[in-house]
Parts: sequence; C-alpha cells; structure tokens
Amino acid sequence: QGILERLDAGEIVIGDGGFVFALEKRGYVKAGPWTPEATVEHPEAVRQLHREFLRAGSNVLQTFTFYASEDKLENRGNYVAEKLSCQKVNEAACDIAREVANEGDALVAGGVSQTPSYLSCKDKTEVKAAFRKQLDVFMKKNVDFLIAEYFEHVEEAVWAVEVLKESGKPVAATMCIGPEGDMHGVSPGQCAVQLVKAGASIVGVNCHFDPDTCLETVKLMKEGLQAAKLKAHLMAQPLAFHTPDCGKQGFIDLPEFPFGLEPRIVTRWDIQKYARKAYDLGIRYIGGCCGFEPYHVRAIAEELGPERGFLPEASEKHGSWGNSLSMHTKPWVRARARKEYWENLKPASGRPYCPSMSKPDGWGVTKGARELMQQKEATSEQQLKELFQKQK
Amino acid sequence: QGILERLDAGEIVIGDGGFVFALEKRGYVKAGPWTPEATVEHPEAVRQLHREFLRAGSNVLQTFTFYASEDKLENRGNYVAEKLSCQKVNEAACDIAREVANEGDALVAGGVSQTPSYLSCKDKTEVKAAFRKQLDVFMKKNVDFLIAEYFEHVEEAVWAVEVLKESGKPVAATMCIGPEGDMHGVSPGQCAVQLVKAGASIVGVNCHFDPDTCLETVKLMKEGLQAAKLKAHLMAQPLAFHTPDCGKQGFIDLPEFPFGLEPRIVTRWDIQKYARKAYDLGIRYIGGCCGFEPYHVRAIAEELGPERGFLPEASEKHGSWGNSLSMHTKPWVRARARKEYWENLKPASGRPYCPSMSKPDGWGVTKGARELMQQKEATSEQQLKELFQKQK
Amino acid sequence: QGILERLDAGEIVIGDGGFVFALEKRGYVKAGPWTPEATVEHPEAVRQLHREFLRAGSNVLQTFTFYASEDKLENRGNYVAEKLSCQKVNEAACDIAREVANEGDALVAGGVSQTPSYLSCKDKTEVKAAFRKQLDVFMKKNVDFLIAEYFEHVEEAVWAVEVLKESGKPVAATMCIGPEGDMHGVSPGQCAVQLVKAGASIVGVNCHFDPDTCLETVKLMKEGLQAAKLKAHLMAQPLAFHTPDCGKQGFIDLPEFPFGLEPRIVTRWDIQKYARKAYDLGIRYIGGCCGFEPYHVRAIAEELGPERGFLPEASEKHGSWGNSLSMHTKPWVRARARKEYWENLKPASGRPYCPSMSKPDGWGVTKGARELMQQKEATSEQQLKELFQKQK
Amino acid sequence: QGILERLDAGEIVIGDGGFVFALEKRGYVKAGPWTPEATVEHPEAVRQLHREFLRAGSNVLQTFTFYASEDKLENRGNYVAEKLSCQKVNEAACDIAREVANEGDALVAGGVSQTPSYLSCKDKTEVKAAFRKQLDVFMKKNVDFLIAEYFEHVEEAVWAVEVLKESGKPVAATMCIGPEGDMHGVSPGQCAVQLVKAGASIVGVNCHFDPDTCLETVKLMKEGLQAAKLKAHLMAQPLAFHTPDCGKQGFIDLPEFPFGLEPRIVTRWDIQKYARKAYDLGIRYIGGCCGFEPYHVRAIAEELGPERGFLPEASEKHGSWGNSLSMHTKPWVRARARKEYWENLKPASGRPYCPSMSKPDGWGVTKGARELMQQKEATSEQQLKELFQKQK
Repeated sequence: QGILERLDAGEIVIGDGGFVFALEKRGYVKAGPWTPEATVEHPEAVRQLHREFLRAGSNVLQTFTFYASEDKLENRGNYVAEKLSCQKVNEAACDIAREVANEGDALVAGGVSQTPSYLSCKDKTEVKAAFRKQLDVFMKKNVDFLIAEYFEHVEEAVWAVEVLKESGKPVAATMCIGPEGDMHGVSPGQCAVQLVKAGASIVGVNCHFDPDTCLETVKLMKEGLQAAKLKAHLMAQPLAFHTPDCGKQGFIDLPEFPFGLEPRIVTRWDIQKYARKAYDLGIRYIGGCCGFEPYHVRAIAEELGPERGFLPEASEKHGSWGNSLSMHTKPWVRARARKEYWENLKPASGRPYCPSMSKPDGWGVTKGARELMQQKEATSEQQLKELFQKQK
Repeated sequence: QGILERLDAGEIVIGDGGFVFALEKRGYVKAGPWTPEATVEHPEAVRQLHREFLRAGSNVLQTFTFYASEDKLENRGNYVAEKLSCQKVNEAACDIAREVANEGDALVAGGVSQTPSYLSCKDKTEVKAAFRKQLDVFMKKNVDFLIAEYFEHVEEAVWAVEVLKESGKPVAATMCIGPEGDMHGVSPGQCAVQLVKAGASIVGVNCHFDPDTCLETVKLMKEGLQAAKLKAHLMAQPLAFHTPDCGKQGFIDLPEFPFGLEPRIVTRWDIQKYARKAYDLGIRYIGGCCGFEPYHVRAIAEELGPERGFLPEASEKHGSWGNSLSMHTKPWVRARARKEYWENLKPASGRPYCPSMSKPDGWGVTKGARELMQQKEATSEQQLKELFQKQK
Repeated sequence: QGILERLDAGEIVIGDGGFVFALEKRGYVKAGPWTPEATVEHPEAVRQLHREFLRAGSNVLQTFTFYASEDKLENRGNYVAEKLSCQKVNEAACDIAREVANEGDALVAGGVSQTPSYLSCKDKTEVKAAFRKQLDVFMKKNVDFLIAEYFEHVEEAVWAVEVLKESGKPVAATMCIGPEGDMHGVSPGQCAVQLVKAGASIVGVNCHFDPDTCLETVKLMKEGLQAAKLKAHLMAQPLAFHTPDCGKQGFIDLPEFPFGLEPRIVTRWDIQKYARKAYDLGIRYIGGCCGFEPYHVRAIAEELGPERGFLPEASEKHGSWGNSLSMHTKPWVRARARKEYWENLKPASGRPYCPSMSKPDGWGVTKGARELMQQKEATSEQQLKELFQKQK
Repeated sequence: QGILERLDAGEIVIGDGGFVFALEKRGYVKAGPWTPEATVEHPEAVRQLHREFLRAGSNVLQTFTFYASEDKLENRGNYVAEKLSCQKVNEAACDIAREVANEGDALVAGGVSQTPSYLSCKDKTEVKAAFRKQLDVFMKKNVDFLIAEYFEHVEEAVWAVEVLKESGKPVAATMCIGPEGDMHGVSPGQCAVQLVKAGASIVGVNCHFDPDTCLETVKLMKEGLQAAKLKAHLMAQPLAFHTPDCGKQGFIDLPEFPFGLEPRIVTRWDIQKYARKAYDLGIRYIGGCCGFEPYHVRAIAEELGPERGFLPEASEKHGSWGNSLSMHTKPWVRARARKEYWENLKPASGRPYCPSMSKPDGWGVTKGARELMQQKEATSEQQLKELFQKQK
C-alpha cells in the first residue's frame, strides 16, 4: 500500500530519524558539509542505520540523499576523497534503502532538500534542473514516493514540489521553519497553502526546532489550510534537541550547534509526549530529524502502540515505561519501573557550571548583514566576512 | 604486537566504548538485564559497532561478553526468546570481534564481569567456575588478552584475575568504584595492590562515574601501588555522562538512570580534556564505558594525535576543533571553527525547568538495608521489599 | 515644583520602592493581608524606610497607604490587634511621608489601590466611596499629587482616577498588568487610553512583573496613546524579581510567591540596565515596587546620573560600578572594580538542585474556575474551594 | 542574666545578623571598606536595624564595631568625610546597642575582628594594642560580654581572646573558616582547642560560608574539643547565602562577591532547617552574619519556638509556615499555606541564562601569589599587582 492509501485510511505512518547527525556520531558524515557520500564509501553503515530505524518502527525509509544535489556535492567536493558523482551517490542511496525496506513493510521515499543554487540566486530553471537530476535517479530506482524537505524559503520548496510532481508520484513537502515563518517572512499557514497548491499531498515541518516548536508550526499550517479550504495530510519531523531558546532560524544559531548539543538531547519520554501531542493535533506522519536515534523512533511507535495495535520489533528489547527495571537488584531502581516516574522526572544535567538557556548567535550582527544572509544576495565569502568583522 | 609490548614500549592504547548502552539505543540490548544475546541474534549490529570503534581509533576490541556468565544469562533468561547457551553467546562475541579486528590493527580482549553468584554468596569455587566457563571460550577462540571489568568488590575481582591468569595471557582488571573504594570499604589503593598481586598487569577503573571521578580514583590506585612498590600499567574507561552528584555506588543510584541520562552526555570536547588529563596522569590505556559513542573514542585519538603521530580513519570525517565549520554560510557559525570556542563553551541544556544536579536515590533507605544491599546477604526479593517498604 | 512641572520640563523623576515587601522582611507587615497598619503601630520603621529611599534618590515618597481602603482593612481586621480606623492609618501615613519629604527635595504622593469592593461586585458608587474616603485624608494632609496604582481591571482604575481628579491635583495611574492586558482582556494600549481620557496625566504599570516585562507593557501603552493621538507622561514601577516564567496574572501565580522569591531578586546592575532601557523608551517617572530595596533605587539614580547631573546622597556609600573594591587586599577581588565585570556577570544561584524557571500555578485549574476568579463573580470561599477540589 | 548563665542553664541564645551587608543595602555602609562610621553619621539607621533584630528574636545585640579597630579606620579613612576617631565610632556603637537592648531583654556584646596590623605582620604587642583600644571603650560602656569574630588565623584570634579576657567578662570567639581550617592550615578542631585554652567560653564560626558548611565546621570544632577533653559552648553565625561552590577562603573568592550575590540569598525556610540542624548538633548560640535580614533571625526563633516556649514580637506579623496565606483570594495561593509546601519547594531563579554554581576566583593565581596572600608577607600593593599581572 502506498503512502497516500495508508494516510487516507487513517493509518499512522512513522518516519525515520535524521541520518547526518546519527552518522556523524558514528564517524561517516562530516559536520559542516553534511553530505551523504557514505552511501558509496561505507554502504554497510548506512544500511545498518536504516535497519535500526526499520526495527524501531519506521514505515518509511528516506533515501540518504540529503544535500546530494549536484551543486552541493561539487561545492563540498574538495574534501571528498574521490570525486563522487551526484548520480552515484543518489543511486547507492536508493539501492540501500530499498534493500532494507524489503526486509520489512516499509516504503522508500526519495528526498531532495534546499540547494546552494537557490541561495546564490540562480534562476528558477537552474534550480529546478538540480532537483530534476536527483528525480531522474529516484524514477530509475522506482522509489515509492517523494519528499521535498529542509527548505527555508517557500519559493524554492514550491519549485521542488513542482519538479517532483512531474513524476506522478505522491509528494510530501516539509519546511525547516518555526512559527515566525520562512526567511522571506511568509507565514506557516501561507507556506502550507502554497505547497498544497503546487501539488504536495502531505505538508509539515522538519528539522531546526524542537518537537514543541515544530508542532506549534504545523498547527499554524493546519489553520492556514483550513482557512483556505484546502486539504492535505500533516507531517512532523522535528529535532531531538530541546531548543526553547531558538531564534527565527532555529538551532543553527545556538552557540552549541553542532558540537555541544548533547545536554539538549531529548529522552524517550519526551518523544512519547511529542508523539501523543502530534497525534492529538491530527498529524499522521510522525517522524524525526537531526538528533533522532532509533530508540527515539521506537518511542513514537510505543506511545501510539494502542492506536496502531502493534509494537515494533525493537520493542522486544524495551520494557514499556521502564518496566524492564522491575527485576533490578536495588529496590530503589526497581521503584523506577513505572510510568509516573519517568513522566514526571525532571532530569538533571550534571553540569552545575552551565546555564539552562543560551542566546542565539547572529542577532548581534547588523540588520544589514542578517538581511543579506536571509535573502539571496549574501553569497560572497569576502562580503560576509567584512560585514561580520565590522560588527566585532 | 601484544598489549603488554605496546604498553611497555610507552604506546598509548585506546580502548573502545560501552556496548550495552550504545546497542540499547540502537534497539538490540534490553536495559535492566543488559545481556549480550545480540551477538547471536543480530551479529550485524554488533559487528557494525565494533567497526565504528575501530574506525574511531580503538586499538582494542572487547568481546561483547558483558554479563555473559552462565549464571547471569540464566537469571535473565526468561526474557530471551530462544534460550541461548552461554557458550554460544560468548563464541559469537569472539568471532565478531576477531573478524572486525582483522580489518585493522586491533587486539581482541575477552572480558568477564561481576557475577550474580558472588552477589548471592556462592563460594569461591562456584564463582571461579563461572569465570572459567567464559575463559574456556576465550582460549578456544584465542583472544589476545583478557579483561576482568566492572567489579564492585575487590574480592571477586581478585578471584576473576586468578582464573584468567591460568590462561597465561596478559590480564587487565578494572573496578567500577569511585574514590571511596569498593563496597566492602577497601580503598582504591588497596584494590589496586590486591589486583596486581593476583596477577593483573594493567589496573584501573571502568563505568559508574564520570571521567573526572574515574581519574581521581585511578590516581589513588597509582599512589597505592607506588606506596607498595608495585608496578602496573594504568587504565581508565569511564562513563560518558557528567555525574558530579553521584554517591558511592555511582550513576545507578541517580534518579535519571538509565532512561533519563541524556542531559548528562559529555561532548567530544569534554572527552578531549579527559584524554589529556588521563595522559598527564600516566594512564596509557584510555577508553570508555557506558555512554561512549564512536565519536567520543575518536576524540581521545584526536587529542592524543600529536603524541601518537597519526589520526584514526574516522578523522577524515571530522575537522579538528570544529574546523569543518570554516566554510559555513553563516559568519557566526564560521566563527565557531576554532579551539578556544569549543574549549570554553558552557553548553546549555535547553531545559529551564530541570535542575543541574540530583540527589542519588537509596540514601534514604535505612542503613540496615543499604548494608544488606552492599554486602552479599541481600538476596531475597521479599526481604528487600520489606526493608524498602519500611522506609516509605 | 510639582510633579507635572518637573516632567513637563523633561526632568527624570525617580520613584521609591515597594513598602509591603521591604517591611515584611523587617518584621512590620504581614504577608497575605499586606496591610499598612505599621504607620500607626511602628511609625519609626516606616519613617526609616522613607528616609532610606530619599537618601537613595527618590523624588517622590508615596504614602504607605497600600491596601488601606476601609473595606480592605475591615476585611483583614481580624488579625490587627487594635482595630485601627482607616482614617488613622491613612493620616499617619501622610504625616510620616511629609516629615521625611521635608528632609529633602521630595514630593508626597497619596496612593490608592484596588479594592475588595470591586472584586466582590459592589457597584460603582460604593467602590468610588471607598476611594473618596482615602482622598479626603490626602486632601486634609495636602499631599502633592495622587497615584492610583495596582489595578488589575481598567474599569476600576478609571473609577479611581475619576475620584482622584475631583481633587484638582495631578493624577498618575499604573496598572499591575503585563503585555496581555487587564483581567477582562483589555489591551495595555486601550487601558492607557481609557486612563488618560479619565484624567490621568501619567500612566504606566507597577508590580506583578519583572522590569523587562513591565517595559514591554509600557511600550504597548505608549503605542496605544500614540495611535489615539493622546499625550501623557509614562511611568514604570516593576518588581525587583526576575519573572520570565510568569503567566498572565504575574508573580502571584509563581510557586515561589511570596516566601521563596529570593533567588529571583535582581542585582543593582540589573536595575541599571532597566533604568537605561526605561529612559531610552521615553519613560521619565522611573521607580520600583515589591522587592525594591533602597540600593535598587540608588542604582536608578546612578545609571541616570549623567543625564541628571548629580548623584544621590547614598552614593557617598557606593562606588560606581564596583570601584569601591579597588583597594581590596586580594588582587582578584580588586579586578572586579570595573563596569565590564559587573555588566557581564551571570550570577550563579548556589542552588544546583533547583531549576531556573517554574510553571505558574493555577493554570491547571479548570477554565471555569479561572474565569470566575478573573471576573468578579468568584467571591464565595466555599464556591472556590469546591472548584479547586474538583481539579485535584 | 548573663550570657553564660543562660547557656549553662541550657537556654537557646539567638544572635543577630550581619550589619555591614544589611546597611550597605540601606545606603549607610560602603562595600569594600565595610567600616561602621554610620554609628556616628547615621545613628538612627543603626538603631533601627538593632530594633528590627530585637523584634525578630535576637537575645544579643552586637555593637556595630566590625572593622572598627584604629588601624582599619585609618586605613580606610581617606574616604570617610570627617576623620572619625576610633573611639567615637566605638562609643556610639555601644550607646546605640545599649539603648535598643533596654527596649527588650537583650544582652550587649562588644565585638572585635581581625586587623590590618596582623595581616601586615605587625608583632603581637602592636596587634594586641589595637584590640585593647576597642576593649577600653567596651569596658567604659560596660557591655555584657565580648566577641572576637571574623578571624582567618587562629594565632590572631588567640591574641584577641587573651586581650578580651583581661576584662574579666565572658568571651566568645568565632573564626571565619571552613572545614579546611585556618589560613595557616590549622584544623577547626585545633582552632577550637586553642581558643578555649586562651580563655574563650564560647567558640564557633561566623561568616564566609553558608549554613551547611558552617555547621560542618562547628561539628569538627566540637569533635576537636571532645578529643581534647575540653568544654565550651558552641556558636554559629553563618552567611545567608548558598555557597556550595566556595573554595577554602569562602564567599569573597566567588565571582558574585559582593554585588551579585542576590540569587544565593537563603529563604526563611532554609534558615528554619539550619536552626534545627544547629540545635540538633548541640549548638546553643545560633545567629547569623552577612546576608541575614531580620526575617531570617525570626525564622530561627520560630523554628525553635517549641523548645523555647515563646515566639518573638515580630511573629505577630508572620504566619508560621505560610499560614497567613490561608485567606488569599486565589485557591492555588491558599494551597501554599502549609509546611510541606515550603519545606519541599525548590525555588527557581528566574535566570535561565545563569549557571547554578561558579568557580571561585583566585585559584588561577600562582601558588606563590596565593601563599603570599594567605600568609602575612603580602602587603605591598605593587608586589601583588605584579604577581597578578603575571598570571593574566
């Protein structure tokens, strides 16, 4: 059954987690470039991560093609040992995802994300060409459906949806925006409307913000669609980091990004709360993005186990709400084998010299610099450096 | 070259990380029992984790045989689907470790840990028999050396060392104790002396406490050995969690154990500080335990890169001190591409409703109950429940 | 010179601090009732506090007549040893304030605040009669001007202003509201417009929120007045507590109110930032409310010393920006004798087991109960208890 | 009845709070010099503070003669407007304390503290002469007993006790040390023994550390006395600041000292716990030092009300354990009118950008510099500046 058949039938579809962060910790992705050449260099590592998400309950395996547009790979290419072609990387990603999907009951989704071409002001034709190059691979490899994700500008996201729709396959579209909307100031409600009008059957947000903030944004999208009398399925794939202190551009501006985010990692119980809240909001495609590990996806599946009627394979290695502690030698550890305990725990950081919130960077930079950054004009390294230096 | 040849020559030996926590997050180990049946059930997952540690710089791959003594597996057996024999689990662990070790330049270490038999007051003969059963497998599979780790009582650790020494192979021994010493009140210095006298060539600590606390404990061991005019190599494999608020029995008593420890996870920079401090203290076997992911091990290898003269394979996917951010689009993110930034960052938790420290559980339990717990008499579930209830 | 002459001439007028909190700590006011019978019982204590604020730079001494309406005193009367008449308490307050004002160059302002009569739905005539009774004393004692402060409902505040205007003296009016507006949902801008139309020459906010939140609210008032093309002087008298976690009804709902607020107390440097921000916003009547001690008022006077051209008497006992530490024996304490140090200090709480923010109480109570509370119908003790019990 | 009669009879004696911090906030004492010229300049302010402590339950009023030795006043004299003689300041302090003591049932204690003479290595004769000059005033004004307080070196404290004993009046002696002992490394137990041998009838600690740390230190003193088979009454007058992060020299080294300590201020409930713990430890002279306000002293008196059989006058304005909230309009505030609520509250700081603990300053300074500081040789400004600069 395809993605739309499932969603139309009222099923809950569980997504997977973000590959670049998980594989960075495992040693296969470089933070900064964040490109997916591991599909060619170390397929076994990519395959294993897919498999873990599948075991954890994912119904969709996204091809590991984040930032795998040709312009991006070229841009970052100077660090990749052998110059891998865009096609090779994307094909390998499709093959691996399909191989693992076949081990269970999962769909394969081909994914595209925002391009350097757009940010450096290339025109619509050029940007669309970049998406089309990836789409060609997805069609050849016959993925089940397509996702346009991680867009900061609805304009580019619409272009992506338009390209993907050429395939005739169902298209989902998620933006990495918060309640304040896209980088040009388009509100979440308006973004959703434009995406649906462009052909997306599923809309929502991914990345950049924590579960609570993402759900708030999807709620605004839902309201925008209702006001416009449009229908679409809703989708959420948030960070697995607590980011109540984010500014408009999300966790990238937090001083801890990307190498000091550990104290912000959410627990499995935080994810159970998120899954419940997402469900209550009417979201039926519920997954994760950066920071999500397999046990976070399993937490979605366990929270919604009653609604779905089954648990994922990996739950064999997990007691619901900590009940696997009920045999512990120490009585006070056994006393933790219950829902109320974990639901109400306020976990300590063990870091008494650290604060609980940060001020996002970048806000000290002149309005001029920010605007350049947020819009498309800010391409020259030199230009930015000068603007930034001026601030110091 | 064997472990002792390397250490005797002044080389730094990098250990690996804790398998039970890493594989619990990946969906292959159940928290509570913490047993390693995944070696048989999902060898590909165990193999992949070994491979990631190898890439990250580990010189030793420990067989995944934690809690794999026969008495433990039987004790926990009721949840393991097919009753796996102790021998099968241990053999598979050896095979997988050796297979991956052969992909690089790593040694394989067979490991034993504390037994339920000891805790339930079985006599020396019976406890030693449990170790010997595992040792038989290690000898058959010809591991390179042996580790007795995670012992709370030096008495049992000495028994383990005595058994392992029968093999003629080098033996390392680490206890999961803090500066206050073992559960019977034997000081770290005394523990070290007893272990060396029993035949251990390498002594130290693993698990239960954060890097700082572990190093403090190893320092006491070192002083104890010096006072006794004994020589041994030093070893540390701490938690990758900040636990300044631990009591004598370590992180198990913290309210966050084991499902709410996320905010305590250490950063790669914390690990670099740990590696440097360990090195300065004269420790030459430097690894990790629960919470360590491959990128933490890589941080040890990168910090000590100058001393060792090379970097691990996984450093291809990592810029030293964040320098992979130097090409980021945002100038304020590029500004993070330097050592001083990450060295001095005090990372926020994003959790303003949570405290920074916790009070360990268990201290409210009567002294009587604790003493029973800490000593070997406290075996009956019923007995403990009653003692605990009395406290409430 | 009167208050309006000063403000019209562009002078900065510095207010005083909240008496009920300061005198509660000194042992003369009971938390809960918060009534000012100390003016009769312990005039020396009230006099001394006035004197300290005067020395610290206050240009206005407010009569200590908070909650001194007849209905309030009667309401709380059961705990006051000798039944003090409303007239006696108010007269004593005027006498003491005038006596101290004469020691310097300060004005005396007679103050009224919200009444139990309004909350228990008495009609306009009755409520106005309560204000008029206090006004009679203020006229007899010839105060310099009048302040209607601490109103949660603009309707009642307007009634108060109307009564006070009967005197012909200048009237200031401040509400204890945040950016969300009054308890009936009237926005800060609208509140300001209504108050000015009713005759207030000075409008703003006092109490219930921290300096930042109060300034945000006054800004909204300013914008409301501008939109309505009305003119008035602006005034702010915030809490000296950090309350970023407040809900709509302010610090009373915080779990720490009123006996655990200590960790929230603002530093003198926080106040200097507040004074500067208030000034930049165009506010010229700058004072404080609950939590303000004399040294907080002095901090306003010191920050605005350059604009005013002089420092208050109490600055003889204070070095600007910590410069009195420049002679300290310890070099690292001497190093604190500079502005940058105190401006940038992030002071620790010394409380590692406490969180940094709280969830306000009361939000768990049913919407029905809250609405009753917020509106005027919720008077019966029994009725409320039942509603509250139902929630538990 | 004299102080010893009371203590010998088993009575609890309640001390007062620290004057320099309380009067600094009120505008009468300058931080840095911390000298008590207010006794002459503003006697009404000193009198009022004495009165508030008396009302709060203090049985002893200490003359406000802290740092009032002639050498100190001269040292700091350059900022005192009219050069006040040591004699004048001390006499005024005695007169004011006696005047207020006569309003109730309190004793007057003349106090001396450590001298610049000692720190600049003057000899015993010279240092003793400084104490004797103050003692002459205390004898002329006939104080009830004498306190030598705030000594970092037991050597100087012993000299002070020896001088004070010449008077024939009872002598109490408290040091500002923590569990690590005095600045020359003498343990608390040894300090207590030396002080008792020198003639002190009451020994303990004051200032520099929080209640918990002070009690820990007094406990060590008690054990030292027991071991030496000496008898003395015990006394504690700690800070009203949480300082778990202090180093050996106490709160002066904390980065927040003295102008950013607000978030560390203890609540009345913290003080009730302190009073109970002090009592259980056998301490019978229980008071406070820097940070104590009258309501903190009242908290001691209320906690020990059952033992003493009466409450202080100021308790008329205080409901035990928050019971004055039982009439509050809001049900959720009324719900705070109970002991369990306040006992268990973990108060938030409202400061999410601040840490919970600090690293003490000064430890980065070279060992050489610290040793100079701690010992008596470090007198030359120039010398210290150079040492400190070298560190930067």
